[in-house]
Amino acid sequence: MESLYVIKIGGNIVDNPALLTACLQSFAKVKGQAILVHGGGKLATSMAESMGVEQTMVEGRRITDEATLKIVTMVYAGYINKNIVAQLQALGVAAMGLSGVDGNLILAHKRTNAAIDFGMVGDIDAVNTDLLNQLLSNNTRLIIAPITHDGKGQLLNTNADTIAQSLATALAAKYKVHLIYGFEKEGVLKDINDSNSLIAKMDKLLYKNMKEEKIIFEGMIPKIDNAFSAIEHGVQSVIIGKAERMDELIKGTAGTTITN
Amino acid sequence: MESLYVIKIGGNIVDNPALLTACLQSFAKVKGQAILVHGGGKLATSMAESMGVEQTMVEGRRITDEATLKIVTMVYAGYINKNIVAQLQALGVAAMGLSGVDGNLILAHKRTNAAIDFGMVGDIDAVNTDLLNQLLSNNTRLIIAPITHDGKGQLLNTNADTIAQSLATALAAKYKVHLIYGFEKEGVLKDINDSNSLIAKMDKLLYKNMKEEKIIFEGMIPKIDNAFSAIEHGVQSVIIGKAERMDELIKGTAGTTITN
Repeated sequence: MESLYVIKIGGNIVDNPALLTACLQSFAKVKGQAILVHGGGKLATSMAESMGVEQTMVEGRRITDEATLKIVTMVYAGYINKNIVAQLQALGVAAMGLSGVDGNLILAHKRTNAAIDFGMVGDIDAVNTDLLNQLLSNNTRLIIAPITHDGKGQLLNTNADTIAQSLATALAAKYKVHLIYGFEKEGVLKDINDSNSLIAKMDKLLYKNMKEEKIIFEGMIPKIDNAFSAIEHGVQSVIIGKAERMDELIKGTAGTTITN
Repeated sequence: MESLYVIKIGGNIVDNPALLTACLQSFAKVKGQAILVHGGGKLATSMAESMGVEQTMVEGRRITDEATLKIVTMVYAGYINKNIVAQLQALGVAAMGLSGVDGNLILAHKRTNAAIDFGMVGDIDAVNTDLLNQLLSNNTRLIIAPITHDGKGQLLNTNADTIAQSLATALAAKYKVHLIYGFEKEGVLKDINDSNSLIAKMDKLLYKNMKEEKIIFEGMIPKIDNAFSAIEHGVQSVIIGKAERMDELIKGTAGTTITN
């Protein structure tokens, strides 16, 4: 089975040109097939500010109203996506930027029945695996912006971590998939304030215990849930770690490796 | 030879939701392969205004400075492109939105030595015909935003009429290509103030005479030059006409047909 790397980089990487370039250089060196999923970053917020569009945050998460959806579509699928693709093309990578609407790549539905109405936010229903296989078999590297659609003409803002997990899972039948989450920390830490307290390997039991002891909380929980979901659906490995160490994360020599 | 329609719609269509929807419905009904190239419209200008980015116009054309390039990349390749694709997906069309940077589809260079420095504007050097053929052979319909790149990481704003002509020409060896320019007038008019003075067919001699008599001038000249260039490079037909009549333009029963 051929290897496929699905690499997700968060907003803090996108916001940092030097770090983004370093991550793209690592991505360019990957052997085998590769997909990059990027988050948003602060540009959408600063755009909204300069346009006088008020941003409502609830529990640290942005509410995607119509005006905000317009901005994130422009920033994520337009500016960030096309600049990443241009940089990769300059590195000789046959990169193609897509959002979830393109070729019906990621079909979603507007989230309903949540305790909080997050607005035009999409939960994923289906991934167009045929299209992914087709593009990958031509050695195209896909750069995915976290915008999906509902099939009825409505674009939706969708969590990039979940997109990365969904794509990884959809391709697990055909490829030996390695899913990598690059973020601002060394990985899952025993002590959130001590970057030397990295947990190199985490299985379900350890995760359960750490959640009970409140060592893992808030934003890390959906990230790790996504990781376990990927492993349970046939993804070979999931590594969560510091984006600055992307080369090592790809080699599997840094970050936290999630195992069953 | 299979038919391929390359349809370009201008900014005035993109700015008019009802007209855009009608054009997309016509596009959805096309038999054979199809590519849609869209222009920009007023959204980029209003975005620039609301962000306090001053727009310099010279001879009715926008100067693309760095801040403007950022805005047009967001608006053209992000907002407009993804909304068109979402609408087409809702109509059951397997549409995929790309800019010229994606898959190195359209390689360009920054325009130099012009009497006016238009800024980050690209003139086309090469079209990735292999990628186009590959995507079309999977019955994907391509929606193209007028942003290209120079292969060194720089995005460039590029004339959508020229992109349409370049794509049509690149595919003329494999497809029977029909190039359609949808805009605000009935076609080429004998009297610009009389919409009943349509010239149904125009050859090179007539064009030459009409230019000399200043009946054709300004913005129409590059449009018609593009049309003749396409015909000379193997494109089957070029029709210029009113976007409201897209169904008829596709049938060849409206607008001005350019012939050799």
